[in-house]
Amino acid sequence: MTEKAAEKKDKKVITDLESFGAGVLKQIEKKQDPRIEMPVRTLSNIYFDQKSKTIKLGDKTSFRNFLNIAHTRKFMQTMLVASEIKKVIQQEATVSIRDLYYALKHTIEGTNENTFEDQSESDPVIEDLEAATNLLREELHLSASSKGVVAGDLKIKDGNDTIDLTRMGSGGWGVPSNVEPERIEFKDMAAEYVLFIEKDAVWKRFNEDRFWKKNKCIIITGRGQPSRAERRLVQRLNMEHNLPVYALMDADPWGMYIYSVIKQGSISLSYSEEKLATPVTKYIGLTTQDVEQYKIPKEVTIKLNQLDIKRLNEMAGYEWFKKKEWQEEFANMKQKAVKLELEALSKKGIRFITEEYLPDKIRRKDFLP
Amino acid sequence: MTEKAAEKKDKKVITDLESFGAGVLKQIEKKQDPRIEMPVRTLSNIYFDQKSKTIKLGDKTSFRNFLNIAHTRKFMQTMLVASEIKKVIQQEATVSIRDLYYALKHTIEGTNENTFEDQSESDPVIEDLEAATNLLREELHLSASSKGVVAGDLKIKDGNDTIDLTRMGSGGWGVPSNVEPERIEFKDMAAEYVLFIEKDAVWKRFNEDRFWKKNKCIIITGRGQPSRAERRLVQRLNMEHNLPVYALMDADPWGMYIYSVIKQGSISLSYSEEKLATPVTKYIGLTTQDVEQYKIPKEVTIKLNQLDIKRLNEMAGYEWFKKKEWQEEFANMKQKAVKLELEALSKKGIRFITEEYLPDKIRRKDFLP
Repeated sequence: MTEKAAEKKDKKVITDLESFGAGVLKQIEKKQDPRIEMPVRTLSNIYFDQKSKTIKLGDKTSFRNFLNIAHTRKFMQTMLVASEIKKVIQQEATVSIRDLYYALKHTIEGTNENTFEDQSESDPVIEDLEAATNLLREELHLSASSKGVVAGDLKIKDGNDTIDLTRMGSGGWGVPSNVEPERIEFKDMAAEYVLFIEKDAVWKRFNEDRFWKKNKCIIITGRGQPSRAERRLVQRLNMEHNLPVYALMDADPWGMYIYSVIKQGSISLSYSEEKLATPVTKYIGLTTQDVEQYKIPKEVTIKLNQLDIKRLNEMAGYEWFKKKEWQEEFANMKQKAVKLELEALSKKGIRFITEEYLPDKIRRKDFLP
Repeated sequence: MTEKAAEKKDKKVITDLESFGAGVLKQIEKKQDPRIEMPVRTLSNIYFDQKSKTIKLGDKTSFRNFLNIAHTRKFMQTMLVASEIKKVIQQEATVSIRDLYYALKHTIEGTNENTFEDQSESDPVIEDLEAATNLLREELHLSASSKGVVAGDLKIKDGNDTIDLTRMGSGGWGVPSNVEPERIEFKDMAAEYVLFIEKDAVWKRFNEDRFWKKNKCIIITGRGQPSRAERRLVQRLNMEHNLPVYALMDADPWGMYIYSVIKQGSISLSYSEEKLATPVTKYIGLTTQDVEQYKIPKEVTIKLNQLDIKRLNEMAGYEWFKKKEWQEEFANMKQKAVKLELEALSKKGIRFITEEYLPDKIRRKDFLP
């Protein structure tokens, strides 16, 4: 079933790409200056959408004209990328964006001009196409990096393999770069929520303690800033199985920023956030307010530095952090002038985080919105 | 069986730690200045061992005396770390080195003195203990980071779980931080060699093409510089199943350096390299000599920069790169003044690397030593 769904999706994407090319061809046949329409991806066209609660790209577009000398190079590059993507899909392969760059790089015959000088020229063109076609990079058979692992109370059907995420030992399943429904299906879901853990070392603590088993949940980490795949996977778990999502981060501006990316997205991926962000996500910890609540000794907190304070002030101004609870947390952090890492809870005992802190937080519903 | 082996190993480690503590106690009871003996871990005591073909720590030692004011702090820290490790093992847990730091950090009663100021104080003490006890960090129940994935023609027994590495879909199994024989057993080995791939994106190409199935091998990546766990896993596959190991890296000084770490180890881990390095590893590619052999277009090569040339000159002087074949490759790279990435092979076709390049290299036994 998944295989057929994948085939169907691929056919649709190829049709989209062909009609994109056919539009240009028609203009040429009519002896018009061929032009393509692309969404504007600058800050002026990016906004926080109150309805979907995600960062979004607006509907401003601009044209790329072949006969405008300022556009010619980019026009050529857009055509090359679109045609290579079609080829990749037809060969039933997935390639990295670096592969794509190399595959397309060549010196144009009779000139000294290269199609692309380096990857910083091909990447934005790919993003343009994603935005223009409203398709995820993964649907275009381009693989983004993915570095996270997942374990928990469900099975994953991936091609002909069924992966039992309750039987991954101490390892966990490496999240692949494409987790679209045509590729990845969920089976035997017995989990009741998703725990998104910032750090790999903390994920290992939760996995070693079989937290996901005792607490019927799924534990996932993106090992720092998560990749698209971890975010998309969590979004699907939320949307398709109605699972609540809790984020467990360091109590510092960086951890809180990662949380905001999981929840409503980032500016740089605004054109895909509707398919990546999970707006129901709640921040379960750490907070600087936990320091009193859980009697965490002062010695394991870390003094805020100038950069932290600057970041904190910026974040306090973001629309999605305007809620009272967040403003209070930011104020508390600034007033105490400390931050703390998840590992600091080890001071209270090796398994304090899995056996006391987290269960207590969930029981008391002590989340930030 | 594994569980019992793990228990036995743990008991032995605890006995070792206890006798380490008892030695100090005995000195105190005799009213001697308590002292501990530690291997010297500076460059002067590190060498390339021609017999084992790995980087090794020599047998120089030094003493840490409690009543020598220059040693007192470190002496105290060593005792704290050793006693915490014993506690961790007794609780059947594994913790990260950051957890350990936080668990031990406190202000000493009646003073303003902290046991540790930051993790840069506790990490070297852990390394001292590893070197002194001749135990791997993993055997001390400390988890190092691990970020790689593996797939291939074998099964892994990890605790009560049996993980079939032929059924990992597009993901792969996330390599856990502890892959010691007490934890991880190999079952149903049908692979004939190990392919150690530098880059995750290239690993994904090999996995998507089911290379490990068609070629009866195991594919593993450490996603850049591999962690201890990936290296240890490969060493065990080589030692216990006599599998040859081939490394597939970018043709640049960085890729070649990573290869040398896989093969004979690094200076910073000299005290553990006998258990981490895999001296039989062969370098299968890329080389700058492949450019002619496989007619790789010049446009996808990259000009060497100053740093590359400096690194190349340094590496040409290393004992383990003295072999003729390496000196030739370095000379060729310098003469052509280019490097190239694995993804550059995409220029020859999406699956050129898995269907032509690698099988041809193996058939022709075209390796660097």
